[in-house]
Amino acid sequence: MRREIYLDNSATTRPYDEVIEFMSNINRNIYGNPSSLHTKGIEAEKLVRNAREIIAETLQVQRNEIYFTSGGTEANNLAILGYLEANPRKGKHIITSKIEHPSVLEVYKHLEGKGYKVDYLDVDSNGLIDVSHLEAKITRETSLVSIIFVNNEIGTIQPIKEIAETVKLKNKETAFHVDAVQAYGKIQMLPRTAGVDMMSASSHKIHGPKGVGVLYVNKGVKIKPLIMGGGQEQVLRSGTENVPGICGFGMATSITFKGIEDNYNKCMMLKNMFIEGLKEKIEDFVIISPECSSPYILNVSFARIRAEVLLHHLEAKKIFVSTGSACSSRKNIHSHVLKSIGITGGVIEGAIRFSFSEFNTIEEVKETVEAVKNILPGIIIRHGGKR
Amino acid sequence: MRREIYLDNSATTRPYDEVIEFMSNINRNIYGNPSSLHTKGIEAEKLVRNAREIIAETLQVQRNEIYFTSGGTEANNLAILGYLEANPRKGKHIITSKIEHPSVLEVYKHLEGKGYKVDYLDVDSNGLIDVSHLEAKITRETSLVSIIFVNNEIGTIQPIKEIAETVKLKNKETAFHVDAVQAYGKIQMLPRTAGVDMMSASSHKIHGPKGVGVLYVNKGVKIKPLIMGGGQEQVLRSGTENVPGICGFGMATSITFKGIEDNYNKCMMLKNMFIEGLKEKIEDFVIISPECSSPYILNVSFARIRAEVLLHHLEAKKIFVSTGSACSSRKNIHSHVLKSIGITGGVIEGAIRFSFSEFNTIEEVKETVEAVKNILPGIIIRHGGKR
Repeated sequence: MRREIYLDNSATTRPYDEVIEFMSNINRNIYGNPSSLHTKGIEAEKLVRNAREIIAETLQVQRNEIYFTSGGTEANNLAILGYLEANPRKGKHIITSKIEHPSVLEVYKHLEGKGYKVDYLDVDSNGLIDVSHLEAKITRETSLVSIIFVNNEIGTIQPIKEIAETVKLKNKETAFHVDAVQAYGKIQMLPRTAGVDMMSASSHKIHGPKGVGVLYVNKGVKIKPLIMGGGQEQVLRSGTENVPGICGFGMATSITFKGIEDNYNKCMMLKNMFIEGLKEKIEDFVIISPECSSPYILNVSFARIRAEVLLHHLEAKKIFVSTGSACSSRKNIHSHVLKSIGITGGVIEGAIRFSFSEFNTIEEVKETVEAVKNILPGIIIRHGGKR
Repeated sequence: MRREIYLDNSATTRPYDEVIEFMSNINRNIYGNPSSLHTKGIEAEKLVRNAREIIAETLQVQRNEIYFTSGGTEANNLAILGYLEANPRKGKHIITSKIEHPSVLEVYKHLEGKGYKVDYLDVDSNGLIDVSHLEAKITRETSLVSIIFVNNEIGTIQPIKEIAETVKLKNKETAFHVDAVQAYGKIQMLPRTAGVDMMSASSHKIHGPKGVGVLYVNKGVKIKPLIMGGGQEQVLRSGTENVPGICGFGMATSITFKGIEDNYNKCMMLKNMFIEGLKEKIEDFVIISPECSSPYILNVSFARIRAEVLLHHLEAKKIFVSTGSACSSRKNIHSHVLKSIGITGGVIEGAIRFSFSEFNTIEEVKETVEAVKNILPGIIIRHGGKR
């Protein structure tokens, strides 16, 4: 029997076998608490330090600028809330875009109720913010700007360096936070070179374990903890370190970064082949992902179908894809991202996200295109049919 | 070569082999994001639901009263900060004890700077709070009381049911939160029966994985999230669920609760045997843990030694113990718990915590007592000697 075809890699990825093995080994043998004074604690602490160094190196930053969290969501929350808590005098104006992940958007909405004035930047039909528009919005009161590097639903890549320069030129006191969850290990960005003050990333998007993330915070930037207690992670994030998770993340980072260019090229090839296949075999569809988007994400809308129906027909063939983003897919509401790029009714209804990883193959792409072609005629909503 | 003797189970425990195997299997095969609509998401969601049911059952509460967090520290932070955020009109007075874990104490200290009046209850030489003293402190303005069930350093067991009754009789609007991290799976307490509104527990203290914890919140109690985003955990705790961690916690809970009485009796026997052994072989020591403390924790002070020196001599024999609690052991400050029960200078300096689990054996206890006996003469600080 054929193996499954997993094309939902932006939701989560299958961990590397080596990572799973490594974590089991740590759970079995190196189970000490890094805060313990004895060797079982010290060997655990060394492992955590090693993972921190691996990640620091990929970003070319110091290891004491790397803080482990329980995931990308916590990293985004910590960056935004922790920065504002530590810098109460920097003004009550904050800026983000309309196509952020909920772990940024919901925090900004929450801050509206806490006396902050929030600007949500519009994006164009490619999902790009208008940098001159951002520039116009920044005032002396602007304390923080948060922008997602690679959008999780459509793959738009924002010009982070240009944005950082604009922010700092307009107000050098404004901090710039980047949600790089869909970019880390895929599309390289060095926060120091780019002028980014804080950057969030997640382990389970790059074949590492769930439940671990990281926040980079430039040494010059003050930030306060969300979670207080024993003072772990330089007092910025208390709680016994998730040693196996952190080390699994470290190893996944190592493996991913070794193949970063090859993986990029492979996914680019798969995505292009996917698009060519669709063009060849399917009449009526729209490519929603913009031209220069991440090779890892392809959002496509098929005419006169409901995406969820296609999703379930595909899963019957053991092909796993997503409608919109995993985070909001259970909520039965239209994607805020697709609405923000000007997509409406029927096209939103038919939108499917195929997201790739290094584990995917040419054969899988071919099979998936063929499967979509075979499924579509049977699920098209006829004139006057039930929606 | 002899295996190690791990007597630092209050810091963290070695995960059950079955749990490690189960998590590897989930990482390999059931790696979907529970928010995904396809079967790979649904099977992950089912596993999480199953773990939630296991834990709800041990507490005899509903499964929608159980919220997974990244650990006991986050659970404590969420209970305190989330409750106060959701109930701003309930008064600005909060109460806790002087011998809480830092994940409660540091949050209370933080709240002093946020306009809260905080009372830190004294404890007696056994580490027990005076319930009539607590009663006297509660006013119409008291919104929250947090008390640790089993103290992590000395093992004092607070009379939770009596405290809950006192709190509610004095002010039925006051919420009662219990940090049960050292009690869950060891000393049974049913929050609903006991009158506890919120209760925190941790996975890695009961042979489950690190990086997972749980907060029970009574359905009638309003609480707001610390970490916002995709709306997971009934919107109380966003972020992709740590599926393998949560399921490992669920399985560890199952195993631990099946043996809860046997384990209790075994550890009680080991602790008593340890004390008898010390009495027999060692002249000058003080038992710090009170008479009726948790069988899992034994805090003892040996005269005229520095605990850290004994710890390192023991680890040379592959015996792993703790000075004070793991969370503060790196900070080189005297334990706030030992100071609160009236212990001073030399006795604090010589205090060692032996903490047990079901994995420990009679032979290990005998060997450890023998090792302590052999080590002590060589490390005693002579009159006028260097401290």
